[in-house]
Amino acid sequence: MTEKLKGIAASDGIAAAKAYMLVQPDLSFSETAVDDPEAEIKRLGKAVDEAKAELKIIKEKATANLGAEEAEVFEAHLTILSDPELIGNIEKKIKEDKVNAEKALKDVTDTFIAMFEGMTDNAYMQERAGDIRDVTKRVLSHLLGVTLPNPALINDEVVIIAHDLTPSDTAQLDRKFVKGFITDIGGRTSHSAIMSRTLEIPAIVGSGNATASIKEGQEVIVDGTAGIALVDPSASELKEYQQKATAFAKQKAEWKQLKDAKSVTADGKQFILGANIGTPKDVEGANDNGAEAVGLFRSEFLYMDSSELPSEEDQFKAYKQAVEGLSGRQVVVRTMDIGGDKELPYLPLPEEMNPFLGYRAIRISLDKQDIFRTQLRALLRASHYGQLAIMFPMIATVKEFKAAKAIYEEERAKLIAAGTPVADHIEVGMMMEIPAAAMIADKLAKYSDFFSIGTNDLIQYSMAADRGNEHVSYLYQPYNPSILRLIKNIIDASHAEGKWTGMCGEMAGDQVAVPILTGLGLDEFSMSATSILKTRSLMKKLDTTKMSELAQKAVTECETTEEVVALVKEYTK
Amino acid sequence: MTEKLKGIAASDGIAAAKAYMLVQPDLSFSETAVDDPEAEIKRLGKAVDEAKAELKIIKEKATANLGAEEAEVFEAHLTILSDPELIGNIEKKIKEDKVNAEKALKDVTDTFIAMFEGMTDNAYMQERAGDIRDVTKRVLSHLLGVTLPNPALINDEVVIIAHDLTPSDTAQLDRKFVKGFITDIGGRTSHSAIMSRTLEIPAIVGSGNATASIKEGQEVIVDGTAGIALVDPSASELKEYQQKATAFAKQKAEWKQLKDAKSVTADGKQFILGANIGTPKDVEGANDNGAEAVGLFRSEFLYMDSSELPSEEDQFKAYKQAVEGLSGRQVVVRTMDIGGDKELPYLPLPEEMNPFLGYRAIRISLDKQDIFRTQLRALLRASHYGQLAIMFPMIATVKEFKAAKAIYEEERAKLIAAGTPVADHIEVGMMMEIPAAAMIADKLAKYSDFFSIGTNDLIQYSMAADRGNEHVSYLYQPYNPSILRLIKNIIDASHAEGKWTGMCGEMAGDQVAVPILTGLGLDEFSMSATSILKTRSLMKKLDTTKMSELAQKAVTECETTEEVVALVKEYTK
Repeated sequence: MTEKLKGIAASDGIAAAKAYMLVQPDLSFSETAVDDPEAEIKRLGKAVDEAKAELKIIKEKATANLGAEEAEVFEAHLTILSDPELIGNIEKKIKEDKVNAEKALKDVTDTFIAMFEGMTDNAYMQERAGDIRDVTKRVLSHLLGVTLPNPALINDEVVIIAHDLTPSDTAQLDRKFVKGFITDIGGRTSHSAIMSRTLEIPAIVGSGNATASIKEGQEVIVDGTAGIALVDPSASELKEYQQKATAFAKQKAEWKQLKDAKSVTADGKQFILGANIGTPKDVEGANDNGAEAVGLFRSEFLYMDSSELPSEEDQFKAYKQAVEGLSGRQVVVRTMDIGGDKELPYLPLPEEMNPFLGYRAIRISLDKQDIFRTQLRALLRASHYGQLAIMFPMIATVKEFKAAKAIYEEERAKLIAAGTPVADHIEVGMMMEIPAAAMIADKLAKYSDFFSIGTNDLIQYSMAADRGNEHVSYLYQPYNPSILRLIKNIIDASHAEGKWTGMCGEMAGDQVAVPILTGLGLDEFSMSATSILKTRSLMKKLDTTKMSELAQKAVTECETTEEVVALVKEYTK
Repeated sequence: MTEKLKGIAASDGIAAAKAYMLVQPDLSFSETAVDDPEAEIKRLGKAVDEAKAELKIIKEKATANLGAEEAEVFEAHLTILSDPELIGNIEKKIKEDKVNAEKALKDVTDTFIAMFEGMTDNAYMQERAGDIRDVTKRVLSHLLGVTLPNPALINDEVVIIAHDLTPSDTAQLDRKFVKGFITDIGGRTSHSAIMSRTLEIPAIVGSGNATASIKEGQEVIVDGTAGIALVDPSASELKEYQQKATAFAKQKAEWKQLKDAKSVTADGKQFILGANIGTPKDVEGANDNGAEAVGLFRSEFLYMDSSELPSEEDQFKAYKQAVEGLSGRQVVVRTMDIGGDKELPYLPLPEEMNPFLGYRAIRISLDKQDIFRTQLRALLRASHYGQLAIMFPMIATVKEFKAAKAIYEEERAKLIAAGTPVADHIEVGMMMEIPAAAMIADKLAKYSDFFSIGTNDLIQYSMAADRGNEHVSYLYQPYNPSILRLIKNIIDASHAEGKWTGMCGEMAGDQVAVPILTGLGLDEFSMSATSILKTRSLMKKLDTTKMSELAQKAVTECETTEEVVALVKEYTK
């Protein structure tokens, strides 16, 4: 009988394929004494050869799917397995200690790992420790006769079932074969959910128990629009969902027609639909999906994908590449948003009881001004090559904004004095993600050129509920009248000063929120690139007079999230 | 030359006395071999005798200052030191292992401590482990010839200098001798700061380095009003501060005259000044300081001072005692506010990355309804004996308030059906401490009988800054226009529905905030009992028309905390 699973709809679309369990097998073993060390050494040799053969295939696959650079790590693994010192040491241990190959392998590699990890002044050698750990797991799996899941080896259409997907898992996914995925944990803003939308793979996250209730090879339908999965579906169910999939594909093709269209409502009012990007590489996806701007360029990747503070030159190149890629459309770069749940190995931050309420983002930038000034110089220099804007994250008070802006002005003046080309006009704005800032938006609008509402943080602080904490996730309520009132306050305050407001949180591409936000007069909607065309299509059907009425009612009359959702349904049916 | 230290003004008043360093001495030692075990056993005996003599004095002191119950712990320590098994084991170890007494003492007591701590199903025996640890430290100090600081032994006027003061430290303080204290860490809402106000001892907290820069016996002036300490003051400085102290004492005597007076402004408008209490024992202090109500009775002590969930009967008795003690004046009891930084040993809560944004207070009560219903029944029963009101902490949405209220109504109906006497009318309100709730105060005011603003949490969530985190403490800004606007919104919303608003956070007794709050029309100010008379005195000087103008200007014109402070100064000079 069909089993139904319910989770969080992470990425639109429908897929049906066999389940591929991306679950780590049990690699535990016991130490045993061996009578015949030579036979045990042969057993080890066989496992090593199998691991090497496997790695060669993975490497080829990865090269084809992801490029030579991404595949290098597997070449490194092969080199380790061909190291006579490592293998020799393991063989020696089997012979001398008369222990099984598993134990000898583990002991020897542990020693190497500890040695490499101990080289704290050598990041390169420290990373090798991770490689040895990976290689040990692979050889161990062959010794134990279990299979290590390997997404890069998938060569048949599958739906991946996992507890969660790490960035390195998603990097290996081949869209040709991976038709959908389901994870046990995560929310709409988790890494795996964001990746599923970027890759346009139907996905369900936070299903709770997918890995426990689905078995390898079972047929699975993923309805990423509804957040529902069907395991072992009946023939009629399969047919029903095939029709849904066809309809969705048709709709998607229609959306694609809107790539070069303006974002206008039924009554002809125009808005800006932009993309959120994480690296200059994402510019391509933004352009392919008809982004009219980049409303949020998270600059963290420069800091997080590095073993030291990124130089001014490296940052300049990245910002320049992004603004050039947008060919004159605006790119809003958010200055460093480190802290909270984002750590840097080379920048020790204090241990905090509540990191989300701690030392992060602009609070660090105002404190460690060298880092901030370097970033500002790189941004100012890049401004010459396109339409760049800057915004500061986590501003809570007028004083903080003025302090950050003053540092910006100093760096700008210095560059101009030195004859460095800098754009004549750069908009300098701020994220609106702290309730206190939203409450004095009228005051901040005097100084800030624009606002960008970061809904994830704004909601978590307003509700006093960590968005990553499942015990209070019911309080993540974007449509609650309290949140809508804060948003209205921000938008109205910016307009009163002749400024504009964008939104770069998850909510900007949310199909229930868009009608309200249109009614509230939000100027720019910035979202995952893959949500843009769908939103542009929705916008075509909306009448702003009617949406203003809806928004007005939602903020004045509604008491709860549920009432707001019902109202939107009524106004958009 | 005089050295000046600056810290946070924790408790008003001025004191001058010799420094008493409440700092733990170094009790480390080396293991040595002894040739003459008998001599070593004698050394041990001498140290034990000295420790006993010391404990006897401490016990007498504690009995006189704090009562027999509080002194029992020292009797327990004496019993341990008279236990022949313990001492016998240590002597045996010295003889057999030929080691020094320190090593033998440590080894034997460690074994006992481990054994007692292992009795996880016996809370009594587990506590004994702590006693043995204390006793070991005391004997060790005599063996090593160092002095263990002991606040109970102080018999001369002193100013205590400590890194921080624990609850057990403050319990031993004798107000006759302890004239003031200075700590390295802590803020205005830390335990030691609250205790200093309760005990009316001038105090400075968060000085940073008092323990490092002051030496035992140095003369110290503590100005707890200004947050300044002078070490080794000159004669003229001493004279200057003596005059200040005299003036303060005079002022305090004047305040005492207001004990039975109403809380009225210069133009005759009346407000309610209440006390925040933690246990029924605090009722006495509230009455002594002329409290017109208890605006906040934290019910946590019932849960935290216990090794299991408190029974309905125990809770009933505590609530009854409090309402009876207030003789008809209102007592607002806040339902269980556990979670965040408050843990219960017998109620395991999930590990959270940001506990302040997590599973706490009403979120737990709505989830674990048994605990909540027990508390509500105890409260309902106690309502028969005085003027009791109930409020729910951490309400974020209308839905949560309605859910909590519905459970209350069910329990009320059940008790009435069973013939249990329950007050005819009990006000059921809520804490206003979450920004989202403040934003929809108009909606919540339809259901809630009153609001009580919890400023500590409201400020920390609005600013997204953990109030206990020194790296972001600059964002704890009670006078920021953003916070004042939220407060105004709450007060206005309650009045529009014919309801009232109180404040039970630190801000309610703050001398800069009171003029603004009076102007905003706050109905009830609830604070540390010892701040009431000072506030009543301040209120007598305020004109509400002028304060309304001040408040209006602060919320509409000011951009920063600094501007608000300047405005208050201007309006109250």
